[in-house]
Amino acid sequence: MNTTVGVIGGGQLARMMIPAAVNLGIDIRVLAENEGMSAALAAFAVGDYRDREVVLAFAETVDVVTFDHEHVPQEILRLLVARGVAVHPGPDALLYAQDKLLMRERLTELGLPVPDWARVENSAELGVFLAGHGGRAVVKTARGGYDGKGVRLVSHEHDADDWFTALAEDGNDGALLVEELVEFRRELAQQVARRPSGEVAVWPVVETVQKDGVCAEVIAPAPLSEGRLAELAAEIAVRVADGIGVTGMLAVELFETTDGRLLINELAMRPHNSGHWSIEGSTTSQFEQHLRAVLDLPLGATTNRDPWSVMVNIIGGPMEGSLADRYPVALAEHPSAKVHNYGKAPRPGRKVGHVTVGGSDLDEVVYEARATAAVFQD
Amino acid sequence: MNTTVGVIGGGQLARMMIPAAVNLGIDIRVLAENEGMSAALAAFAVGDYRDREVVLAFAETVDVVTFDHEHVPQEILRLLVARGVAVHPGPDALLYAQDKLLMRERLTELGLPVPDWARVENSAELGVFLAGHGGRAVVKTARGGYDGKGVRLVSHEHDADDWFTALAEDGNDGALLVEELVEFRRELAQQVARRPSGEVAVWPVVETVQKDGVCAEVIAPAPLSEGRLAELAAEIAVRVADGIGVTGMLAVELFETTDGRLLINELAMRPHNSGHWSIEGSTTSQFEQHLRAVLDLPLGATTNRDPWSVMVNIIGGPMEGSLADRYPVALAEHPSAKVHNYGKAPRPGRKVGHVTVGGSDLDEVVYEARATAAVFQD
Repeated sequence: MNTTVGVIGGGQLARMMIPAAVNLGIDIRVLAENEGMSAALAAFAVGDYRDREVVLAFAETVDVVTFDHEHVPQEILRLLVARGVAVHPGPDALLYAQDKLLMRERLTELGLPVPDWARVENSAELGVFLAGHGGRAVVKTARGGYDGKGVRLVSHEHDADDWFTALAEDGNDGALLVEELVEFRRELAQQVARRPSGEVAVWPVVETVQKDGVCAEVIAPAPLSEGRLAELAAEIAVRVADGIGVTGMLAVELFETTDGRLLINELAMRPHNSGHWSIEGSTTSQFEQHLRAVLDLPLGATTNRDPWSVMVNIIGGPMEGSLADRYPVALAEHPSAKVHNYGKAPRPGRKVGHVTVGGSDLDEVVYEARATAAVFQD
Repeated sequence: MNTTVGVIGGGQLARMMIPAAVNLGIDIRVLAENEGMSAALAAFAVGDYRDREVVLAFAETVDVVTFDHEHVPQEILRLLVARGVAVHPGPDALLYAQDKLLMRERLTELGLPVPDWARVENSAELGVFLAGHGGRAVVKTARGGYDGKGVRLVSHEHDADDWFTALAEDGNDGALLVEELVEFRRELAQQVARRPSGEVAVWPVVETVQKDGVCAEVIAPAPLSEGRLAELAAEIAVRVADGIGVTGMLAVELFETTDGRLLINELAMRPHNSGHWSIEGSTTSQFEQHLRAVLDLPLGATTNRDPWSVMVNIIGGPMEGSLADRYPVALAEHPSAKVHNYGKAPRPGRKVGHVTVGGSDLDEVVYEARATAAVFQD
């Protein structure tokens, strides 16, 4: 069978597909934005994913097209499909990862649990929503937000005027998403893989710890999640995947509310930071599973390999030089930690790697993972 | 620090270094014999490893040179060292992997346990050895043998005359190695990694099952090896690595004799088929450890991740086409098996992939690994 997978985008998610592709004998070809990106080893072409000719030429060299990110324009995605290219996830699904307003509308149609939300086109409408939700809310731009960007806590109807003005100027459908400020115990993430033929596989729900809007740590499985919570999270993720026809990996970011409900926060239709622990922590990693899913191959077992797996991101800055400069210390002091280095310059605030540690004592595993990551961030 | 590793040889051992290099952010560059080899993804150059200019030019682009095989001529290895290139393992160690007579002599000097052996230059000398060892023995060419080639069971002094003639003709030091026919319970293999600075790490001793002189299955750890046997195997391997100054991975193939001794059969100074199980079965795989060792980085933990890991090779033929043609069946029926596909045409008798399964019930693990591999060999 044909197993050449084309990945649009050369970031660390494409990079981490390479080991899984090498093991399974899958030919992985990356369309990278620039030379020397994280996935450069598999860079088959370099070009702009917003250029239809670039993307079409790349697609002709592969059996299936998938993604490192969700930013390829709908018109190009639909052109690929019209040309008979297998695109996973497809444009009809990616639409909901690209536009938070459409996502909220669709999830609401599907009867899935989401925070109270509204589409607001001006400060007056925002004011109405604030009045109905205790005077505080979260405003999100429908498009282009990630890692906390495009998200703002507001307590006054004029707190988003600059965004309303910008939206009016750029001629897009000028609306913002406003959501209730959810009071939550913690944030969770549920990963699911889905094949075009419909088979799905879920991993145990994980707990994610965010810092400054960026994922900092992941604990797999989420503590005290066995039973009802795990079943509910898995059911929600499968209903989302089936409901919007996701193919490949889907990550559903969830709030566990103070009153014990699960509400859907965000969706990511690709391997996701909350699943990096699975490289060592699961029988089948999210990267291998993504490749299997987009090729419509049978999905692998998602059993945990350790009672606990903890992933801690390595964020760039203040350290200078390369992460490898710290290897003599990090690897000597932490022989069981699995260090992942994305080959990116460690600029402040940038995700440049991660550490995963597995074991049976959660406190020890958390300590070891944090201590290893800290060596790279002194 | 500098972490560009050059690998001479483009086979599956180089290929399986790629995932470890990607994870650790090590720049791996392969000098492949031809286009489209197993390690083609990392092929930085294509050329003949017996051509000094080709090898020297390649070496100038990397921080350390290591190997997929042991066939690079001594003169070229020594030229690299003379030019100041870091070569691991170095020529003084590789010599003993390249020449079985020198290996036997050196191991005997080191007081390590080996079968009775002799250097024989003609049929008369072979006859003397046969007379002293019950009329049967194993004759090996000193150079160029692998996977059973260059090894012959003899029971008459003239059974190796063709080899004596060939040796005389090719002008090499015209001697053969003759060894006693060891009566053994089973074959074992002990892996050890050693850094230039001297740190060593050992894995649990494994049992290897050979078919037609080729490794067919590996059970890790070797059943009933805990305690004395494991300690003795590890001690032997460390004494070999220290005694001949191996840097990188060393595999020591051992006979467990019917009277309970361990005798050294062969040495391999590179990642070895008997260690493929470690990709999933150990906290640190032999491929990651090899990269750490040749870069003189601290070695990783070698704890087993499952009570039992079993590796079964996938040998080419009679099936046609690519291994991936069997994925719809193999992956559906065996969701926990880890399939490794070397991207090689499945010619009869050729190692084209392997399967590793881990678990707590050895019988189930062996069954599952064999059943998965069998899907590719119908």
